Amino acid sequence: MNKKEADELARACAESIYARDIAAQSLGIRIHEVKSGYACLKMTVRAEMLNGHDICHGGFLFTLADTAFAYACNSYNKVSVAQNCEIDFIRTGAKDDEVTAVAEERRRGSKTGIYDVSLSRHDGELLALFRGRSYQIGGEVIQ
Amino acid sequence: MNKKEADELARACAESIYARDIAAQSLGIRIHEVKSGYACLKMTVRAEMLNGHDICHGGFLFTLADTAFAYACNSYNKVSVAQNCEIDFIRTGAKDDEVTAVAEERRRGSKTGIYDVSLSRHDGELLALFRGRSYQIGGEVIQ
Amino acid sequence: MNKKEADELARACAESIYARDIAAQSLGIRIHEVKSGYACLKMTVRAEMLNGHDICHGGFLFTLADTAFAYACNSYNKVSVAQNCEIDFIRTGAKDDEVTAVAEERRRGSKTGIYDVSLSRHDGELLALFRGRSYQIGGEVIQ
Amino acid sequence: MNKKEADELARACAESIYARDIAAQSLGIRIHEVKSGYACLKMTVRAEMLNGHDICHGGFLFTLADTAFAYACNSYNKVSVAQNCEIDFIRTGAKDDEVTAVAEERRRGSKTGIYDVSLSRHDGELLALFRGRSYQIGGEVIQ
Repeated sequence: MNKKEADELARACAESIYARDIAAQSLGIRIHEVKSGYACLKMTVRAEMLNGHDICHGGFLFTLADTAFAYACNSYNKVSVAQNCEIDFIRTGAKDDEVTAVAEERRRGSKTGIYDVSLSRHDGELLALFRGRSYQIGGEVIQ
Repeated sequence: MNKKEADELARACAESIYARDIAAQSLGIRIHEVKSGYACLKMTVRAEMLNGHDICHGGFLFTLADTAFAYACNSYNKVSVAQNCEIDFIRTGAKDDEVTAVAEERRRGSKTGIYDVSLSRHDGELLALFRGRSYQIGGEVIQ
Repeated sequence: MNKKEADELARACAESIYARDIAAQSLGIRIHEVKSGYACLKMTVRAEMLNGHDICHGGFLFTLADTAFAYACNSYNKVSVAQNCEIDFIRTGAKDDEVTAVAEERRRGSKTGIYDVSLSRHDGELLALFRGRSYQIGGEVIQ
Repeated sequence: MNKKEADELARACAESIYARDIAAQSLGIRIHEVKSGYACLKMTVRAEMLNGHDICHGGFLFTLADTAFAYACNSYNKVSVAQNCEIDFIRTGAKDDEVTAVAEERRRGSKTGIYDVSLSRHDGELLALFRGRSYQIGGEVIQ
């Protein structure tokens, strides 16, 4: 498979997952770009995502990053799940912020992978850094 | 302040945060018990929390754990935020699962703290382990 | 296998690993106690372990914790290796400090495990918290 | 300060730390290149670094990565210490392997920083990925 075909497969996998991904849809997460081992997603912070400090609950930033990670690590049409994820919160998000998650592959082995995701705001400020470790459980994303 | 007073302060802080915590409320997260450096919260997995693999999106498990962590580290009436969080996913959650998050303090310094959260299902099975690192930014939870 | 036999197997595994563990021996790491899923090791901070700030180089504290983790996760006579480890540095170590590492199992699955290690000084002060994730690669520690 | 001066300051800080860093010296760690927010160090795996599986003890790989991280985060002449470090072990190291650690800054705030370190073997194979979180404690590296 060449690079172009691999990227097309990645997009097809992402569309297949997204069609069933009620959580991502209900949070208003949009796919911006998916390539082999890469995903860029966007989400706008809504009123119901605010926490007791009146800032975006870290859980929603995590969810956006985790979703980008999932689309990147499932881009090879091999079903992969998250083993472990971590997030460093750098700046807080506010209502109506548009947040972009860019997931990039740091390392891919035969079963496991490491992906770094950066979350940034529409004005370019970095909100969080996320690292996810994936595990390939068998099965294909698209039959 | 004795132990009883400290626990009452912890509960008052949690109630104050919860009243403003639209995210926790909208996800149906309930406070079960809060003490000094400790919080036990519950959440039921809903249809809109499912992802493309038809299991609970890890982001919602994270959000529950992160919320328990927040209530535990803010229990001293000093406003504290998450610096860094991590989660190990052990078993998947399904629709209608009732998930309990128990946050316990591992270490508390003058500004920073480390809290461990376990997420378990109604039948006692462990779903995830979470560790959060907090930072006290100044200000009080309850004026 | 009952608890007593499991603990004896754990000790035998630790002794077998230690006999070949040149690194642990050359750092003066001593086995204090090993049980099934548990290890307690000790190390004294030497002059050659000090770094440019004249405190114990974090790498040696990590190495002690990592060794305790290894003895705990190999205690079932199934060869296990570290996938991922992390350490939070809380207090610094000084020359001649005797440091105790206690490794405890948080979770053990069919292949993977999570172990928490605390490092404390002879006066009981906590120096660091470590978490290790293990992976069972096949093969036995003792033939 | 321009880029050239900043890089010279970084090198001077590294040399000052290294001169007192008995641990790094005794392990045979060598400075290859230091710039502002960046450090490249090298270490050769010795017989006394081998563990019970006859591979390089993960603690020594950690120590090399942690040292590169320290030189990168102290390159601004502000004394910084490690708060938290983590390492993913990907391939094992063997006796006589020459290991290169490259530390790069991912994010630097007013007090805290995040640095990624990759460890690779002389043939280019990736051995480990490390992430360190630093905290600036006050004081200068070079008076």
